[in-house]
Amino acid sequence: MQLIDGKAIAEQVKQEIAAQVAEMVANGQKRPHLAAILVGHDGGSETYVANKVKACEVCGFTSTLIRFEADITEEELLAKVKELNEDDDVDGFIVQLPLPKHINEQHVIEAIDYRKDVDGFHPINVGRMNIGLPCFVSATPNGILELLKRYNIETKGKKCVVLGRSNIVGKPMAALLMQKAYPGDCTVTVCHSHTANIKEECQAADIIVAALGQPEFVTADMVKPGAVIIDVGTTRVPDSTRKSGFKLTGDVKFDEVAPKCSFITPVPGGVGPMTICSLMKNTLLAGEKVIYK
Amino acid sequence: MQLIDGKAIAEQVKQEIAAQVAEMVANGQKRPHLAAILVGHDGGSETYVANKVKACEVCGFTSTLIRFEADITEEELLAKVKELNEDDDVDGFIVQLPLPKHINEQHVIEAIDYRKDVDGFHPINVGRMNIGLPCFVSATPNGILELLKRYNIETKGKKCVVLGRSNIVGKPMAALLMQKAYPGDCTVTVCHSHTANIKEECQAADIIVAALGQPEFVTADMVKPGAVIIDVGTTRVPDSTRKSGFKLTGDVKFDEVAPKCSFITPVPGGVGPMTICSLMKNTLLAGEKVIYK
Repeated sequence: MQLIDGKAIAEQVKQEIAAQVAEMVANGQKRPHLAAILVGHDGGSETYVANKVKACEVCGFTSTLIRFEADITEEELLAKVKELNEDDDVDGFIVQLPLPKHINEQHVIEAIDYRKDVDGFHPINVGRMNIGLPCFVSATPNGILELLKRYNIETKGKKCVVLGRSNIVGKPMAALLMQKAYPGDCTVTVCHSHTANIKEECQAADIIVAALGQPEFVTADMVKPGAVIIDVGTTRVPDSTRKSGFKLTGDVKFDEVAPKCSFITPVPGGVGPMTICSLMKNTLLAGEKVIYK
Repeated sequence: MQLIDGKAIAEQVKQEIAAQVAEMVANGQKRPHLAAILVGHDGGSETYVANKVKACEVCGFTSTLIRFEADITEEELLAKVKELNEDDDVDGFIVQLPLPKHINEQHVIEAIDYRKDVDGFHPINVGRMNIGLPCFVSATPNGILELLKRYNIETKGKKCVVLGRSNIVGKPMAALLMQKAYPGDCTVTVCHSHTANIKEECQAADIIVAALGQPEFVTADMVKPGAVIIDVGTTRVPDSTRKSGFKLTGDVKFDEVAPKCSFITPVPGGVGPMTICSLMKNTLLAGEKVIYK
């Protein structure tokens, strides 16, 4: 069994980006610039955004953090989005989700200029990804592709089961893994709450991408010997022995599944670190204007 | 075994649309207006477009057919697209594919205002469909959903195998059948040229959607008793006994598969007639401005 070290790969990718940025700057080009809008003071969101700002520093990007209180109106937020759309110095930007309930997230996502939508959530980017056209691919599925690539994991003709059909992980992951490409060319099955026999589906899989958000859902009896296991789950499970009071728990029962696998991602330190890394990659692409002019 | 009569359902749907149009007109609203651009004189395209114009008449739509010779430049075609985008009387329009090789089809598709893109090929409509937002769904998958609905075929929790991963049938079909909806909530597997064991995948399926374009690919030994078979294939196979010189042949070996099924679509007369019908449905929605303002 080989552990997929997402943390190490993420560091490596960020160093590669930093080298490219240094070259851009040496050639007289401007540093890629990522802006992030953070609304309110949600603990998780604060951490994510802080990590994104930190990653920008490592990559040599310019970053701007724009904060609003939770009582900002949708109109005010949309006005800021418009401003960032029109700001030539900003190559890409994100609006950290979730947003307060009185704001329609979909309105905000669709207001972002797709050419600056480095989160890859705008319908144009989702559509282009599905058609197989160049676009900003959303962070988590893109990070998983990168891990498969870096570990030279064969995907062509493999049977892949994706657990979960969310818009930001399950569905795009399935679309990407079925495409004529590497990684890709998998026979993909998407399972969800209405799947009749998830255990049997998993047992037939060469690759399992678990993105249900159900702690330790995938157990050893569900896994074929030699399978590749990608664990996207990150549920905070209460743990009184920890200072934080919780433990990040994946969708896979790691201790019993790991010995059966050929490759497995740990939680934390597997898919998680790759997510921010993918955002950095998209920001670099936005800065280089290679996807959209 | 029950034959799914796409021809009859298509007639029924068109009559329903005609009734709605009559009501719109009685209320002083304008008739929905579909425009079609046809480039060159490809036999298949001529037939499709003629059938679309005929279907418009049945539905009570206004239709406009715009013809260009095959040597039209991409710029000239894009100029016409722009003109139709800006023509307030035109609710929706299509550019009949395929286009001559010197024209980039993707450029043309993306030039169409997505609010008039009744073919549902624009990335915004593809993306919205994948996210589960209101949009123009492309014709063939939408027609199949309609058939499943009209025959009250249960889909929730069913194992569905989609054969083929094309952008206009396989991929959207898979996305729609996995969504939290009816028809939908299936456990979907997408198979293609790199799938290791298509026979076994098909044998496990409650519903098979065959869209490979390989005549009589699905044989009786691949089908579970009681399965639902949707045949999207329409390959012209030479047949000297026919005046046309060819026979439209599906992806399913109908004679041997039909007796094993609960439901099956014939070729011709199954999915085919529903495709134009879906286009009419989208044109009605465009005329009513219910999806986009």
